[in-house]
Amino acid sequence: MEALVIHAPGDLRVEQFDTAPLGPGQLQVRVRCGGICGSDLHYYQHGGFGTVRIKEPMVLGHEVAGMIEAVGADVRGYAVGERVAISPSRPCGLCTYCQQGLQNHCLDMRYYGSAMRTPHVQGAFRQQIVVETHQAHKLADSVSDGEGSMAEPLSVALHAVRRAGSLLGKRVLVTGCGPIGALAIIAARRAGAVHIVATDVGAHTLGKALKVGADEVVNVADDPEGLQRFTADKGSFEVLFEASGNARALVGAFDALRPRAVIVQLGLGGEMTLPINTIVAKEFDLRGAFRFHEEFAVAVELLNKGLVDVKPLISATLSYRDSARAFALAADRSQAMKVILNFD
Amino acid sequence: MEALVIHAPGDLRVEQFDTAPLGPGQLQVRVRCGGICGSDLHYYQHGGFGTVRIKEPMVLGHEVAGMIEAVGADVRGYAVGERVAISPSRPCGLCTYCQQGLQNHCLDMRYYGSAMRTPHVQGAFRQQIVVETHQAHKLADSVSDGEGSMAEPLSVALHAVRRAGSLLGKRVLVTGCGPIGALAIIAARRAGAVHIVATDVGAHTLGKALKVGADEVVNVADDPEGLQRFTADKGSFEVLFEASGNARALVGAFDALRPRAVIVQLGLGGEMTLPINTIVAKEFDLRGAFRFHEEFAVAVELLNKGLVDVKPLISATLSYRDSARAFALAADRSQAMKVILNFD
Amino acid sequence: MEALVIHAPGDLRVEQFDTAPLGPGQLQVRVRCGGICGSDLHYYQHGGFGTVRIKEPMVLGHEVAGMIEAVGADVRGYAVGERVAISPSRPCGLCTYCQQGLQNHCLDMRYYGSAMRTPHVQGAFRQQIVVETHQAHKLADSVSDGEGSMAEPLSVALHAVRRAGSLLGKRVLVTGCGPIGALAIIAARRAGAVHIVATDVGAHTLGKALKVGADEVVNVADDPEGLQRFTADKGSFEVLFEASGNARALVGAFDALRPRAVIVQLGLGGEMTLPINTIVAKEFDLRGAFRFHEEFAVAVELLNKGLVDVKPLISATLSYRDSARAFALAADRSQAMKVILNFD
Amino acid sequence: MEALVIHAPGDLRVEQFDTAPLGPGQLQVRVRCGGICGSDLHYYQHGGFGTVRIKEPMVLGHEVAGMIEAVGADVRGYAVGERVAISPSRPCGLCTYCQQGLQNHCLDMRYYGSAMRTPHVQGAFRQQIVVETHQAHKLADSVSDGEGSMAEPLSVALHAVRRAGSLLGKRVLVTGCGPIGALAIIAARRAGAVHIVATDVGAHTLGKALKVGADEVVNVADDPEGLQRFTADKGSFEVLFEASGNARALVGAFDALRPRAVIVQLGLGGEMTLPINTIVAKEFDLRGAFRFHEEFAVAVELLNKGLVDVKPLISATLSYRDSARAFALAADRSQAMKVILNFD
Repeated sequence: MEALVIHAPGDLRVEQFDTAPLGPGQLQVRVRCGGICGSDLHYYQHGGFGTVRIKEPMVLGHEVAGMIEAVGADVRGYAVGERVAISPSRPCGLCTYCQQGLQNHCLDMRYYGSAMRTPHVQGAFRQQIVVETHQAHKLADSVSDGEGSMAEPLSVALHAVRRAGSLLGKRVLVTGCGPIGALAIIAARRAGAVHIVATDVGAHTLGKALKVGADEVVNVADDPEGLQRFTADKGSFEVLFEASGNARALVGAFDALRPRAVIVQLGLGGEMTLPINTIVAKEFDLRGAFRFHEEFAVAVELLNKGLVDVKPLISATLSYRDSARAFALAADRSQAMKVILNFD
Repeated sequence: MEALVIHAPGDLRVEQFDTAPLGPGQLQVRVRCGGICGSDLHYYQHGGFGTVRIKEPMVLGHEVAGMIEAVGADVRGYAVGERVAISPSRPCGLCTYCQQGLQNHCLDMRYYGSAMRTPHVQGAFRQQIVVETHQAHKLADSVSDGEGSMAEPLSVALHAVRRAGSLLGKRVLVTGCGPIGALAIIAARRAGAVHIVATDVGAHTLGKALKVGADEVVNVADDPEGLQRFTADKGSFEVLFEASGNARALVGAFDALRPRAVIVQLGLGGEMTLPINTIVAKEFDLRGAFRFHEEFAVAVELLNKGLVDVKPLISATLSYRDSARAFALAADRSQAMKVILNFD
Repeated sequence: MEALVIHAPGDLRVEQFDTAPLGPGQLQVRVRCGGICGSDLHYYQHGGFGTVRIKEPMVLGHEVAGMIEAVGADVRGYAVGERVAISPSRPCGLCTYCQQGLQNHCLDMRYYGSAMRTPHVQGAFRQQIVVETHQAHKLADSVSDGEGSMAEPLSVALHAVRRAGSLLGKRVLVTGCGPIGALAIIAARRAGAVHIVATDVGAHTLGKALKVGADEVVNVADDPEGLQRFTADKGSFEVLFEASGNARALVGAFDALRPRAVIVQLGLGGEMTLPINTIVAKEFDLRGAFRFHEEFAVAVELLNKGLVDVKPLISATLSYRDSARAFALAADRSQAMKVILNFD
Repeated sequence: MEALVIHAPGDLRVEQFDTAPLGPGQLQVRVRCGGICGSDLHYYQHGGFGTVRIKEPMVLGHEVAGMIEAVGADVRGYAVGERVAISPSRPCGLCTYCQQGLQNHCLDMRYYGSAMRTPHVQGAFRQQIVVETHQAHKLADSVSDGEGSMAEPLSVALHAVRRAGSLLGKRVLVTGCGPIGALAIIAARRAGAVHIVATDVGAHTLGKALKVGADEVVNVADDPEGLQRFTADKGSFEVLFEASGNARALVGAFDALRPRAVIVQLGLGGEMTLPINTIVAKEFDLRGAFRFHEEFAVAVELLNKGLVDVKPLISATLSYRDSARAFALAADRSQAMKVILNFD
């Protein structure tokens, strides 16, 4: 079977890749769709991010959905032909963090398509994969493969929203409306946010933000003072989801945040210089949000029940054989949100 | 102007009632719709509940909406002709609880149509009322007067949901599907509950529960063991909203609740005999929920934006002159959820 | 080696009991001291409690400390001759609750000296026992074996205090001053409670309550209205630890509790009849507290550092061969708090 | 009466200053002791901090205790001759934040000795002051005037500890051991922290840290890698109190903090450059802590009951007439922690 293997920046190849033997309690899945994530783009464009670098060939990809084509011994509750979204997260279950319910901080995590450890953990941009049953979440007929592949980034957004505590009736700001920011809007609305304002520097993404539920948007490239109208009485927003990874976006929101505001930082962005005195004096609560755990099942259930709609975020679906074009499109925020690879 | 005044059980009269003079910072409102609440019914049927008894004639009612017909001196941001939902809650703002943000526990609360203190606080089932601006919340054109009058019970449900903490992705049980239980379903769904099961003893209310968003319903009169299928692995539900006030409903849910489940008790019901050992061993968290404060503004904003739909719960709208029939209907759970009085 | 085996109510025998073979990663411990717990007393006096009944002979006991006399293969960090407190809690680590960090709700818990499952889990009132290393917590030289055996009930109290959230600066009521109530006083003080009032019906226990840190005590047998002075402005206490298992103690405290008070229920007591309307109207938060998990390590560290002092609660130390007298004394709240068995 | 009035950096004068007339509900207090705070030092050395600058002569000081010498009309519960600690915090009670129990974010705060607003709020370094009764907290005979004047910085530390949630059994790091850091150690221990490690760059302060309860200290000037031994398994500490205001201290602690660690930022320090990716990936929770509200009463009660001991932090007591020497000493962290001015 074929896989998309990254060898070096810009060097992404279609190669033969052996599928692991199907063991007891496992499923063999024919991968159908895979979404291109920001980290896939970083590997492709720069060979990694921060200290994480490709040191050996690695299959990319961790946002996939497909169809079960074989079930291992002792498997119950799954059948050939069922369609599933696949969680790329495989914590050890035994370490101190897993035993505290903090599986996303597992000391021995194996996450698809990640060069964080060496040997790298091979990814899921391939035609066939063997997974544990707990990774496979059944999709309803009403959910397409492409939508199913978005269960993963939706899980990231749901985890971020949970990190913020209850949003029911809250006023929420989202800075950065790429796929994760847009999914944060969807998740925040689902969680009961009563008013959502989104900022970005691009018209395309802000249009999508409105489409998925933002009440207002501010293009901070055109209107750098656009958040000024939210600054009266020490600020308007009780929660900020920062999904741009840009220090200007984060700091630029401070005056619009109420004292005790919760800031959930989703965007990665290296070093940021922050006015710590404002964080102290307004008693902000800045919380990192990283990956997810039980939120994957929630994401699939919300999709299955039609309680969220991610379709407006799927910009295009291209064959994995056309990966160069797909990655170029995924990198162009003026035209694309989520680009899906088709592995048929 | 006329008002509905309760004198004794069953003795509810249309009487002339003077409107207070319009002071600075106040609004004079022409009341249009008023919803009949369970406590109104208790006053009407039994003269009160628990130790709270009518000791003098009292205007009933606390769920009302209407139109501004005059604005007092120094009022800004309100105009004659605007339609508003009116919060019946008037905490003192100065006591130890108000200063902690716990206005629903105010030591000097004046809540419309309540005999908790003597002289009683006169209610809002009248054609005209003078209110403080902070009590008046503007309704969008898309929201009818009747829906506006439901901002109050919706606030109660929103407050209960907030007491439960974040519901995003949670599995929720609601016992008792009268108006408050049904609004709890609406609020829980709005807050991101992923699966909602509702129980009641009546087909009419359970039909409404399904209509407003319950995923499944159980008629525990017909099927007393109907929650058995949720008891595997120590239980399924992470949150229970108990809105029946019936000990059997509460205790009957225990086996279906997971350890550490949060139980929000909304229903009033006198004494309840509970298996305390189960509460201890499963470490339940049983929380009372009483009235609301900032949730009133949230309720109106959710209604205005169409983020919740309470229309399926309005069973009938009758003239206040026809109060006997309206109260009889409101008391009949086999036909009616919320009955609205029209004060035109 | 010898063990204390319960056969039927009142029938507690010293019998030979084989020690399990020492496996890899395990420790063989010479048990030196074991505290008699309320559940041991229930087995001894009544053959069990609630639906939990002795169905076969069972070694009693779960509060023990001793000295390592052999270490299994692959054990690191433990040496023969070291003194340890032994946690009786052995969750499976794999079930859904263990994976959420809720090990005290493990679906496959094996807790020493418990008849909750059949075959019963044999207890630790014996001269020798083989344990897993994670059960063994080293005692400082300054901590006696008897104090070490109190790590277990102290863990229960610490868990209850954690269930209450932060106590720093809080006003706390403790109802019921047996060993668990008294340890709750110690734990609440350690956690920063600023004022602690304790109630009981016995002078001996209240004397101990004062000795371990209560600021005031009320003998509700002598002075049933003794909590009246705490009822102004809707109540004084922000937290109640209910350790009596008596409904009168719980309900009798309601007027003295502030709105939104947290009630941590520790005491077991079958059915309790509660005024649910008060729980609703004052928005109490009644939380069960059951056993412990990571608190055992905390208990030993607090003992080792002298940050808590449990010595005043040790009423007597008797030989396990004198168990009839020891259990009689342990049952007599007019003379005894914790009675320790010596297994030398 | 005389007061210490700052006119410009380095220009601190003893001047006559009129005491306000004693109104109803007020107390006239003879100030006896006043502690020099970091902000007093900033005004003295630099004329302010950040954008806060002295624009007119201002009495310094906000940490004071004294004796009541006259009581206004309608005052109950206070008598001439009683000794009190005085809270410098006077929130309006009416704004949106006060009504939410967030008085430290009051929109109309008047805090003694602060140039944040103009006209500046005059401070309490004076011989006589008129205060509201709610500002005056009675001191026990066992508490000296100097200790009483430390109720204010102790309140700051208690507030910071409360911001961290429950500390019972937690492992805590404190970076920066000036008066606030040292008081954070005291408060964290009082709140049940089981192990406390403190860092600083000076031997004097670290000696004091040990004296007030730190289990271990690390001099990061001598041993920059001193926190390395706490970095195994992604880190040791669950909570960090950052009291240095130094980015190196904050960032230098990251590897020693466990995932989901709570960082309470107390120290002010202008801009800080932070590795945001670490905050995201380890899901830190960075919370500002600013001043206090109800913690002042808690501070006085803890002092009165001997539940905390601040005496080791009082380095010297000098006459207010000797302010130049007192401020020089207060600024010298190699010899002094808290320096107290005597106003007799």
